This record gives sequence, structure tokens and C-alpha cells, in this order.
Amino acid sequence: MPGICNIMFQPDDTIVAVRAGTTLLDAASRAGVALNGLCGGEGLCGRCRVRICRGEVTGGSTELFTREEIQAGYVLACEGRVESDLLVEVPSEARLVRDGAVGEVPPLLDVSGAARRQLALEPLVRKTYLALAPPTLDNNVSDLQRLEQALARAIPSREFQMGLRPTRLLPRGLRKTEGKVTAVTGFRGPLTEIIDVQGGDTTRSNLCIAADIGTTTVVCHLVDCRDGQTLGQAARYNSQAAYGADVIRRILHASEGPEKEADLQKAIAGDLNELVRELIARYHVDAQDISFITAAGNTAMLHLLLGLPAENLRKEPYVGAAYRLPPFRAAEIGLQINRRGVLYCLPCVAGVIGADIVAGAYASGLSEGDEVRMLIDIGTNGEVVIGNRDFLVCASASAGPAFEGGECRCGMRATRGAIDHLRLAGADHLLSYSTIGSTAPAGLAGTAYVDLLAEMLRVGVLDRTGKIDRNAAGKRGGEAECGELEYLVIPAEQAAYEKEIGITQGDVNSILRAKGAIYAAARVLLRALSLSFDDLAEILVAGAFGNFLVLPNAVSIGLLPDVPMPRMRFVGNASLAGTKLAALNQRAYEDMRRVADRLTYFELSTDPHFMDEFVAACFFPHTNVELFPSVAAGFSGKGW
Amino acid sequence: MPGICNIMFQPDDTIVAVRAGTTLLDAASRAGVALNGLCGGEGLCGRCRVRICRGEVTGGSTELFTREEIQAGYVLACEGRVESDLLVEVPSEARLVRDGAVGEVPPLLDVSGAARRQLALEPLVRKTYLALAPPTLDNNVSDLQRLEQALARAIPSREFQMGLRPTRLLPRGLRKTEGKVTAVTGFRGPLTEIIDVQGGDTTRSNLCIAADIGTTTVVCHLVDCRDGQTLGQAARYNSQAAYGADVIRRILHASEGPEKEADLQKAIAGDLNELVRELIARYHVDAQDISFITAAGNTAMLHLLLGLPAENLRKEPYVGAAYRLPPFRAAEIGLQINRRGVLYCLPCVAGVIGADIVAGAYASGLSEGDEVRMLIDIGTNGEVVIGNRDFLVCASASAGPAFEGGECRCGMRATRGAIDHLRLAGADHLLSYSTIGSTAPAGLAGTAYVDLLAEMLRVGVLDRTGKIDRNAAGKRGGEAECGELEYLVIPAEQAAYEKEIGITQGDVNSILRAKGAIYAAARVLLRALSLSFDDLAEILVAGAFGNFLVLPNAVSIGLLPDVPMPRMRFVGNASLAGTKLAALNQRAYEDMRRVADRLTYFELSTDPHFMDEFVAACFFPHTNVELFPSVAAGFSGKGW
Repeated sequence: MPGICNIMFQPDDTIVAVRAGTTLLDAASRAGVALNGLCGGEGLCGRCRVRICRGEVTGGSTELFTREEIQAGYVLACEGRVESDLLVEVPSEARLVRDGAVGEVPPLLDVSGAARRQLALEPLVRKTYLALAPPTLDNNVSDLQRLEQALARAIPSREFQMGLRPTRLLPRGLRKTEGKVTAVTGFRGPLTEIIDVQGGDTTRSNLCIAADIGTTTVVCHLVDCRDGQTLGQAARYNSQAAYGADVIRRILHASEGPEKEADLQKAIAGDLNELVRELIARYHVDAQDISFITAAGNTAMLHLLLGLPAENLRKEPYVGAAYRLPPFRAAEIGLQINRRGVLYCLPCVAGVIGADIVAGAYASGLSEGDEVRMLIDIGTNGEVVIGNRDFLVCASASAGPAFEGGECRCGMRATRGAIDHLRLAGADHLLSYSTIGSTAPAGLAGTAYVDLLAEMLRVGVLDRTGKIDRNAAGKRGGEAECGELEYLVIPAEQAAYEKEIGITQGDVNSILRAKGAIYAAARVLLRALSLSFDDLAEILVAGAFGNFLVLPNAVSIGLLPDVPMPRMRFVGNASLAGTKLAALNQRAYEDMRRVADRLTYFELSTDPHFMDEFVAACFFPHTNVELFPSVAAGFSGKGW
Repeated sequence: MPGICNIMFQPDDTIVAVRAGTTLLDAASRAGVALNGLCGGEGLCGRCRVRICRGEVTGGSTELFTREEIQAGYVLACEGRVESDLLVEVPSEARLVRDGAVGEVPPLLDVSGAARRQLALEPLVRKTYLALAPPTLDNNVSDLQRLEQALARAIPSREFQMGLRPTRLLPRGLRKTEGKVTAVTGFRGPLTEIIDVQGGDTTRSNLCIAADIGTTTVVCHLVDCRDGQTLGQAARYNSQAAYGADVIRRILHASEGPEKEADLQKAIAGDLNELVRELIARYHVDAQDISFITAAGNTAMLHLLLGLPAENLRKEPYVGAAYRLPPFRAAEIGLQINRRGVLYCLPCVAGVIGADIVAGAYASGLSEGDEVRMLIDIGTNGEVVIGNRDFLVCASASAGPAFEGGECRCGMRATRGAIDHLRLAGADHLLSYSTIGSTAPAGLAGTAYVDLLAEMLRVGVLDRTGKIDRNAAGKRGGEAECGELEYLVIPAEQAAYEKEIGITQGDVNSILRAKGAIYAAARVLLRALSLSFDDLAEILVAGAFGNFLVLPNAVSIGLLPDVPMPRMRFVGNASLAGTKLAALNQRAYEDMRRVADRLTYFELSTDPHFMDEFVAACFFPHTNVELFPSVAAGFSGKGW
């Protein structure tokens, strides 16, 4: 058929037919191949990279890629458009924790061959079409009972409950439709709520939104609950940033009074509504068909979303209002989906261990595996989880905003204009760099700082204590405006806004403390469990940051431990993957509540070893080089 | 102490000290002795009669009593005022199914020595005072979890759920009160809802309203959930009467549109609010301390209360909207108790078998007993229940409004001016009569028709086919205005409004059909079970009507079966007693739901024997006199 192209995705072996001109991202979505993409398909984040093995594609080839990558056929799926039949390879880092289709047979989540799980499709909100037999004198139970009896035959036997409003509408509804109705039922633990009764058969559409609410970014996936497929995704920055870049400032704003609290609640509800509007427009669906939302996020974000007072989260002893919440009517917090749609929040564990960590520990397979694994989620806080199906312990280290572009003089969030990756050819020679959006460089993203420090150590312009060697830096050594010693990356004349971009001694110190805190957290938690890194079957790296991190550089500077690379794995946005698992499977939702119950929070600040470990880790890669044998083996140059 | 009198109630052996001048009804209420009283203590209904064995009382001696009764010391408790120390005997017919205090030890309901049940005090909504330990770094679970953990130690372990609004108020509430709060928890089957969290210790007051919503009369009891005591009661006529005296007319009105439906809902909600206002004023309590309402009533009344469409209840195949409902927020239907208070409706079984029957079957002990009993609830419909703990069957016979004062020419409801009892000295000689309120007679209440027919049969002015003998009637025989043959009871000059009061041949026919239908229902139901009246351990007579019925007269005319009097028992307002049991004990509430499930509705209209039984019963007392041996033994005079 002219204009129709067949696309095969590898290694899935999934084929989908689309019109020429369709983006690869849309094609992948229709094929049920879920790709990463924080920027909402705007070609900014570079996370949806795929490789074209055969066939023609226009666009999608940006300066985010190296020349070798471009030659190898890499394109951004959100920008590349189908021109012919294609064979497309999807690299594992482009996937959302490989959460493919959910069905009766294929496993939902393949945890690297370890704990293969079979999860049936049992979404939190289900639609069941019922053709009720008309009542007779011999069988004249009430309308509600007739509905419940039919429902009990279709849904595992439970106690049903229905609100007054839908009960009032039931008798006329049943007669108008001659008993042909669709019952919308929501999971409520031991109860099943009959949320709504719709006329006729509406089961052809049952959608949900899986939302990951980050401090910086909000990501929503639109999921088809009939087959577990992700229809598409959208993301935007959290509008709460207007009230403070970090969580503490937002909480302070909210604490000033009910109106200020409402500012933050409305901001995030508005973001979610924007994303829902975008998704329903893009995929031509009806908001009334979105039956529920599952949401994960850090503890503070979920508090602010629900309008729960968050002020005690920032004050010792760091007590939140509620971590484990029942489902609520989504409309109660202003979310615009089905008027009777439900909001399910995943459970948090502590002020600093949010539902995102719980969802991540579950989705990554860590919480259910036989072997002991570690999950490191890097952000403003570095969260570390260690465990398996028998135990789960987590700790949170305050890393500060250095890895998110904060605190450092030229740091910026990973938005347009931020340098995200760079290489040095020598102490005073920048070999290459890339910026997000391929524009003139405006600053350094967290990933660029990791690359930069690793390169500076390699070329000998930084010593292991973190001191910049001004002499070795040559013409790149100098003084910043603030008077501090600086290593220049981009001179003013090449930079956007004509302001030079560099790293100061103070910036290095900040990053040293941040990476030291995360590594120390991992070490102290291991020690508390009488374990070492060698005892871990795998180290899983998660977080928006971790998704795009050059792992060997992160090991070089001692942010991540020095274990053989095959034992280290990116899991991308594991939180969102867990949120979708919960949405699609009631047992997964309940399992995550058990994960939250099982997760023991380990308070680092009161541990006697933490300060020693932290001080020892404030060194590149560490004061004890025996902990980083592969890095030590490569020691060379003046710095070592 | 001057002015303080000690009152001992017998056979309870309960002593209470009250000020002189207190009514006996108030004194009984304070002593936890629950007395009947449909009229709300206005001296109208005559149901609260007690006997003064020793001591002085002023007032309460009315013409509702015979001279012998007055001499024996009978007074109306609502009008008699304490003047000295008293010994008061409470006859069983004055009691509300003997529902005394509920406690850990004494049985709540003594079912005539048969099924003694021990029900602990576990009200549907409980208050639990908690003094929460302040959070520390070692124990910094969320505020909600801290509350739930403390609650789980006090309340049998369950899954708790709390709405968003109280959760939002929790953090500041806990800090303001330093963790000293009262949790208000509501039973929701497998879940326990944390309805509200109140500052400080509010457990000193936890009240509920038990409501019996009849077509004609609405009765509310104010119950103290701390000890199960009934503080007092209030009653009023159902304001829905403005939209129709009977259920069918009200349903027709409601079916005309949403506004008309709202008329009826608002009328009954308004009645309940009136009664609540009256009770809180009388007992000096706060509406906010009323945590919940339990309600029983016939199926149509509960539909109209909840605003559920009732139109299908009057059309074959008689299907209601819902018979078994979860708890709702009382405010949702406009009830003015605690703003977060809960409404628990007891379950119905069918369009004509309401929650009042379920509650009655349970409270009377019928549904839980070893022996087989029959419950006859007499009203516009005569409901018959037969069963024990193993089986429960019920039928409903359309008796028509004859026993409620409808249909008959001089019939009236049992209100002021209605003749309720009378005796004949001979065929043309009225020996005595009593009117409600002791005013000039205005008409005949249902109970008066029973007495009148029994007396007319006895003195030979009525034959067994129901034909009035004009000759025997002498000067009392004549023609009514309508031209029908009439037996005159009160001549115009002695009657209120100067209109003569009598019974016409048509009236007799109506009552004959009504009593025939009820008796036939009992017979057919027994036959379907291969049982006879002799197989029944007891026959329990319930209903507002039955409460004041002269039993031997009801047997004489064949309304009630001819069994030895010790096997027949008044149980008064068994529906209200059941409603209170449900309020005070979660297990009783759940048991009643099981009673509703177990109750098999037997449709009389499709039974081949019903018409034969009905025709045979349209005779005084019955075509087959062998069924009424004690009546046959007394046959005398012309009529027999």
C-alpha cells in the first residue's frame, strides 16, 4: 500500500505499520515499545535515541550525537520521521525499564533474567460490560443487587460498595439501556468500589495516567488499560518552581498560610491537567475515558499535590502528614479526568524516601529478587536502597543541587543551552562538547560536571584532593569574576550571553561533597548490613540524572562504586515504570504498599560512621584507592 | 436531701435519684428503662403506662384507663410527676422490646429465655482517646501512621482509611493538642474509616440517633454509645403525608420529576432534623456529639429518605433501586448531626419487606433462635416472618389501610379524638369507650374496629359471614348518610363535629378482607413450610398497631391465630429495637445484613393456595372453626 511503511523494532521483534511521515516515537508507541523522553518529544533531552539498521529516515540527527554515532545510524525517535520500511534497534538506555506490553502471557518486566515475573492485566480501575437479565417476579432483587450479582460473576468475589450519587442514577440508567451497562470498578483494598455505571458498552476505552511528579520535571504516560500499552507520554517542568527551585523553599512558601499552600497545590494540579490535555489532544481520546491516575513522586511533592501540610518535613524529626493514603476522587484535588475518576498515590516511607523510591525498588525488581541488589537514585538527594525479597533498607544523603546544576557558578538545569557532555584532549584543550538543543552553550548541566571532573583528573589539571592545578591548566587557568581560581571551559566570546563558562575551586568542592555524600551513604548502609559492594548482584542506577550519565566517568570521580560494568545497570525512570505497574496490576499496587512497609529507613545523620566515610569519600575517587582498583590501574599524569 | 426522690423500677431493680416534679418518663430514661411512647411524651398514645406500687405521683391518670386500672395505680409515665420515693412497676407492654442497657456483662436482649445473647458494646461509630507519643528521629513515621498505630492498639486490628479533608487537618491538629486527640472511627465492613480527629478527649460524649421511619410516624431515640442507654425519644408524623397518605401516592408524586422527588426527600430529612433538634434541646447535648444515625423503615421510606428513585417499587415486578447500602455521610442527605457523621441504613429484602422487618426479625430473637417462631407485623401491609437461625421466610399481604383508620367511613388515625377501645353491654348498649387525649370522640382507630367487631360478634349483632343484623341492633341499627346499613356507636350529639360515628356494612367487609389477608398470609406461609401454628414456639406481634391491640379480640375476629395466650407476645416497635442493636453492636449490624440475605421472600400473589385461604379466612373467625377452638368454645348468642 503506497505511503504505508512497516517498522520492525529490535530486539522486540515487534512490527507496526504506519503512514510515511510518522515520527519514530509515535511508531514505537503504537508498537508498544516504550521509549524514554523527558522533554515530551521536543528533541531536547536526547533520551529517545534509536539506531536505524535499515531503511530511510528524515530528521532526528542532531549534534547531541558524536560523528561516530551519526555514522552508526543514531537518530532521535521524537524527531526522526519514517520514509520507508525500517529495521530499528532500540538500545536499552532508551527504554523505560523495558516495561513493554502487559498481558496474560508475556512478562511485564524482565529483570535482567533474574526475577521474571508474570503479572496479569488487572488494572486498579476496571470496566466490565454487563447485559443484565430483566427483572421478573421470580427474580426481583434490587437494581443494585442485580448489578452486583452480575459483577461478582465477572470480577473475583469481593464486597462491593457504591456511593449515593451513582446509586440514585442506577434505576433509570438500567431501564434506559435495557440492562446493558458498563460498570466501572475501583480497587479499594478489601472493598471494590462501583465508581460509575455507564450506559452501553464503554469497555472499548479505559485509560489511565501514570504520573511521576519530580521536583523539577513532571512526566505523564497515557496508558491503555485494555492491553497495558503506553499510548504516549508528555512532560513539563514543575510550575511550583515559581515558588522556589528547591523543595525547602516551596515548603516554606506553603507554610505561610492556606492561600500559599493552595498556590503550590494548584500549580502542580495545573501541570497534570496540562499534560492530560496535551495527551488527549495528541491521541484523540476523551478525558472522560481516563478512569484513574496513579502518582509517584518524592514525599514533599505528593504532600503538595494533595494539599497536605508539608512544613514538618523540613524540621527535625521530619514527620510528614501521611505516607500511605487511600484512593481519593481525582476531582477532589482538581484533576480533570473522568468526573468520578480516582487518584491512587503510591506509598512513601519517610520524609526523604518517597513513593518514587518505593516504585523504583519494586519496578527494578530489587524488592522481589532473590539476590541482593543496590539501587542508587541520584538527584538533589541521593537515595540508596539495598535489599531483596527478604529485606529492604534505604538511606538518603543530602547531596545538594550540584548535580542538578544548582550551587555551581555556571551550573544550570538540563535545559536548552546546557552543556551535557564534554571531552578534554589535554590540560588546556577542550576536544568536544555537546549542548542540549544544539545551541550556543549557556552553562553546565550536572552530567557535564561529572565528565569535566573525570577529564580534568585524567589530564592532570585536578589532583585527588580536588585542587585545581593552575599551572597545569595553562591558558585555561585564571580567576573568575568572584575572585576564585577557575578552569575555563568556554570563553565568553563563544558562549551565549557572552559570559564565560568554567568551573571554580568552589564548584569542585561542592561536587566533591555531593558525590562523597552519596558514596558514603552506600558504604554506611552496606556496613550496617555487614555487606560490601562485592556482595551485590547488581547496582541499579536510577533518576533523571542517572539516565544520561556516562557511567565510567561517574566511577572515575567516585560517585558510583568501582564494580565490573556488567554488574552496573541503568534503569532510567524506574519510578514511572513502577507507577505503571501499579496502575495495571492490583497486586503490584498492594505489593508496593508492602514494599513501603518493609523498607527500613536508615538515618545517616545519627550513624557514628557516616562522617568518617563522608570525609574519606571527599577525595577523587576516594582516600582508599583500593576501593577503586580499575580507576587506580589507569592512574597517570600529574594528578595521580 | 430535700426535693430528691429515689425511684426504683421493677422488675429491673434499677434505682435512680431525681428531683421532685420530674416526669416518670424522664426518670425511667435516666434509669435506662426504655419505655414506649409514639407520641413523644404528649400523653396521647397511652403507650407508656406504668403502675405505681408505692409512693406519690401527681397527674398521669387519664381516661385512657379503666376504673380498675386507675385503682390499681396505672399512670402515664409521660404525664405522671414524681412527688416522693417510688416503687414503679413497668409492664412488659410498655417496654421497647425490653432493650435495656448494653454492657460487657448483661445481655442486651432477653428473648423470653430462649436465645439469650451477649452483645458487647461496640457501636458502629466509636470514639477513642489517644495520647500519642511525640515523634522522634528514631520514630518519625507520618502523623497518619502514628495515629493508626495507636488506634490499632485500641481497636481490633483492621485496615484504616481516612478521607483527604481530615488528613489535611491532622498535622496541625496533632501539634496544637500535643498528640492528645480523640479518633472517631466508623465501621465499614472490612475497613474502618477514621471519620474525624477531634482535639483533646471528647469521648465523654458519643451519641447516636436510632430512627424508625414509618409511613405515618417517625420515631427517633437518642442513644448514649458509651453505655448503650437510651437518653430519650421523640416522635412526629411523617411530613410526607402532605404528598399522599399512602406510599403509592407518594411514589407517584416523586416520579413526576427531580423536584417532586426532592419534596419527599426534604420532608423526611426535615422531620429527622426536627426530632434531632428536639432531642438535643431536651437533653442539653450538642448536635456535633451525634456521631451517627441508624435508620430502619419500610423499603419505600428508605428510598425516599435517600432520594433513590422509588417508582419501580409500585410496578410489577416491584424492583427497588437498592436494598443493601453502604454507610453514607449523613450530611449528604441533609441530616444535621456532626458534620462528618454517618448514616447507616439497615438492609431491606424486597419492595414489600423493608429494613423494619429485618430489624424486627433480629431484635425479637426470631432470626437467631433455635425454635421456630412467627412474627406478624400489622400495618397497611401485614408482614409475616417465620423462621429460626436456620431458615427465614417472609410474606407480605396487602391488608389495606383499614387497620390504620383508612378506608372505613368513620376511621381515623390513632390521634387525638380517636376512639381506641370500647366495650358493648348488649346488642344495642355501648358499655364504655376511651378516646385518645380523652376528648370528645371524632372517629374510630383501628384498634377500636377490632374491639367493636369482636364485641358485635359476642353480643350477636354481627354474624360469622360479617353481616350486620339490623333487627338485633335495635335502635343502633340504621342507615348511614351514604345509604348503607350502619351500626351506630356514637350519636351525632355526643360526637365531636356533631357527626355520628358508626360502622357500616362496607366497613365490616373491608376489615374482613384485611384480617383475612393477614391470616391467609400466615397460613400459606406455614403450609409452604409444611408447618402449622402448633409447630411455632411463639407468635410475636409487632407494629405500632399491635402494640396496643387487645389480643383476645384480635383472635376472636380471626386476625391472629388461636394459640394459647402464653405463646403469643407483643414485641412493640421491634424495628426500632433492632435499629438500636445495630447502632450499639457492629456484629448485630452485620448479622442483620445476613438476616436480609437469608430472608426468602415468598410471593403470595402467585401462590395457588392463597386465594382459597383468603376466601376461607373472610369469615369470623374463619370458615373452619376448628382452627379457632377457644373462640368456638365461647360461641353463644344469635351470631354463632
